[in-house]
Amino acid sequence: MSTNVCVAGVGSTKFGVLPGRNLQSLAAEAARAALADSNIPPARIGCVFVGNFVGGIMTGQELLGPIVAADLGLSNVAAIKIEAACASSSAAARIGHDLIRAGAEDAVLVIGVERLTGTPRDALTTAMTAAIDQGTEGVAGLTFPAFWGMVMTRHMHLYGTTREQVAAVTVKNRKFGVGNPLAQFQKPVTPDEVLASPPISDPIRRYDCCPATDGAAALVLTNETLAKLYGSPAVRVAASVLLTGSARITDYDEITTHDGTVSAAIRAYEIAGVGPEDIDVAELHDCFSVAEIVDSEDLGFFAKGEGGPAVAGAPSARKVVINPSGGLLSKGHPTGATGCGQIYEVVMQLRGRHPNQVPNARLGLTHNGGGTAAAVTVHILKAL
Amino acid sequence: MSTNVCVAGVGSTKFGVLPGRNLQSLAAEAARAALADSNIPPARIGCVFVGNFVGGIMTGQELLGPIVAADLGLSNVAAIKIEAACASSSAAARIGHDLIRAGAEDAVLVIGVERLTGTPRDALTTAMTAAIDQGTEGVAGLTFPAFWGMVMTRHMHLYGTTREQVAAVTVKNRKFGVGNPLAQFQKPVTPDEVLASPPISDPIRRYDCCPATDGAAALVLTNETLAKLYGSPAVRVAASVLLTGSARITDYDEITTHDGTVSAAIRAYEIAGVGPEDIDVAELHDCFSVAEIVDSEDLGFFAKGEGGPAVAGAPSARKVVINPSGGLLSKGHPTGATGCGQIYEVVMQLRGRHPNQVPNARLGLTHNGGGTAAAVTVHILKAL
Repeated sequence: MSTNVCVAGVGSTKFGVLPGRNLQSLAAEAARAALADSNIPPARIGCVFVGNFVGGIMTGQELLGPIVAADLGLSNVAAIKIEAACASSSAAARIGHDLIRAGAEDAVLVIGVERLTGTPRDALTTAMTAAIDQGTEGVAGLTFPAFWGMVMTRHMHLYGTTREQVAAVTVKNRKFGVGNPLAQFQKPVTPDEVLASPPISDPIRRYDCCPATDGAAALVLTNETLAKLYGSPAVRVAASVLLTGSARITDYDEITTHDGTVSAAIRAYEIAGVGPEDIDVAELHDCFSVAEIVDSEDLGFFAKGEGGPAVAGAPSARKVVINPSGGLLSKGHPTGATGCGQIYEVVMQLRGRHPNQVPNARLGLTHNGGGTAAAVTVHILKAL
Repeated sequence: MSTNVCVAGVGSTKFGVLPGRNLQSLAAEAARAALADSNIPPARIGCVFVGNFVGGIMTGQELLGPIVAADLGLSNVAAIKIEAACASSSAAARIGHDLIRAGAEDAVLVIGVERLTGTPRDALTTAMTAAIDQGTEGVAGLTFPAFWGMVMTRHMHLYGTTREQVAAVTVKNRKFGVGNPLAQFQKPVTPDEVLASPPISDPIRRYDCCPATDGAAALVLTNETLAKLYGSPAVRVAASVLLTGSARITDYDEITTHDGTVSAAIRAYEIAGVGPEDIDVAELHDCFSVAEIVDSEDLGFFAKGEGGPAVAGAPSARKVVINPSGGLLSKGHPTGATGCGQIYEVVMQLRGRHPNQVPNARLGLTHNGGGTAAAVTVHILKAL
């Protein structure tokens, strides 16, 4: 006994440096846009799930569920914050999806929000390490640029991936960013500019890193009956998966293959009854340039070691267009908001209304990871 | 189409000042105890929900879902943190309950955990105000002792509640704490000691306040089929409700009546098919002594204004025994853990195995509030 779940409406703020905005106002802006887009009456919303990662550490604000619900004029709802590091809001979408699919709820408002710039406690790298176990690898000094630096080094060693191929990820995504009015960076970069940018954590350079970003994105999830009743511009959720992967880098057999992504992808394809060859458009978690290569392999778009050549232009059997939003590298990475932001982008593609439209996009995928790919979501979305 | 949900097993650490323990180790201890108590094989767990409020602010640690799941040896699960301030873990229980009830999951591990003492960023009052909207009442200087001081003053003014009646809450709960080996305070206090304790926020004095506490508690929620299969010492969840109330004190018509509690209680009684007169034992959110009086009225145990006389010994038609655990005032208030801790206590009562056993307890209730009663849960539990 299960019902089809759909994204009935989406909303987003601009992603970027947004001074003078707090979490509440960003979340409410995206949520109001999603509610209006969905045409679902706010009174039908039973749950409000706010995905947020470091709102407590960076701004001292928690209890976002009830506060944002009140700002939206929603009363007597079940409102909580859901946190899974950089996968917070896609994890929230998965919980909302499951409640609707099983018939426990008819309509759930899922919001992702983050402020990472100009906050009272602005110390970004320290805040991000909240997603590393402070009892083990945190006290040992691990940071995310260090983790991804090791991944890049190892990927180059194992598969012959070149520094130029990795730089091609940034070049591609910056080019896409030019066309996306929501993106933080709307300026292209050349391969030489990537390679000459300042070193961050060898071999990672500045333009291999996504920026710190403020922003919010929101989704109205409903069953398809409700979406039809209100004439929502609905897109079907063909699969919504959240799974744990290795929570510490010392748990990895091999840090260039992320078990959380592999498991979540396999399960999502199985639920949706499709394979990676069927996906037209994908938004992947390119927090660092090399991450897109690793993810594109772990999701089955390319065999291991073929992700680098593929992004650099080698012929491929795959039709999938990756990160036409500009990805985290260009659109920006407001951590708690990123998951909903990716779903926003793919929904726009499947409606045929994206500024960087993939022709005839019918099936899309989002991939969002928290920590060392310790929490991974994969959503497969289908045009109706 | 719905299935009966039960608490198949419970576990808890000692509540108190627990130096040298981090969130991960406390959460894992409580979770292992709950899994062992339930007799459910860990491999049957599909979701791990960690309720936690200020782990980010106080200790810099987030992503507790995947990290704790990994520590427990659980792989390929959906693991998230759920935050609703002081109601975080009971809110997590509600989400777990709904997933099981609707058939989306068979078994969910719900953990509540908090460290409030001796943390790297020890600044308790500031951390707690993360549950106040920093965009409005936070910047105006509101704190929780100030909020409850206003509530006490107003309750005395409106209903003639006396300072001595409010002190009787602390005296009663401290007496119960003596018998509870998990409690932080196991020493009685006299009415005179309460009234002579140092002023905190007029008319609130030190012994009117719950302490800062470290601790964790956990529940294994399953459907009754699974609990029977594995011979779990199960207690039925007759109702699990989470609702928003007023998220700001300026939203209140009257601060001595908490709309979130009233709505959640009405809905819970309706779902369970019982009334307040049927409840044998209740664990209420007595973060301050006067809160127990307000809550006991809002939950329907007493009419408005009768909560004070009732706790001070006036005859009442109600059989309910309130906070035999010692409540937050004696057992302690490890914020994110409190909701699961209350359910732990009521489950033990319904199994007939509580150190302060209420004779013939068959029906129990827990009430847990976050912020200015902005997020409220009510659970009704029934002996099988």
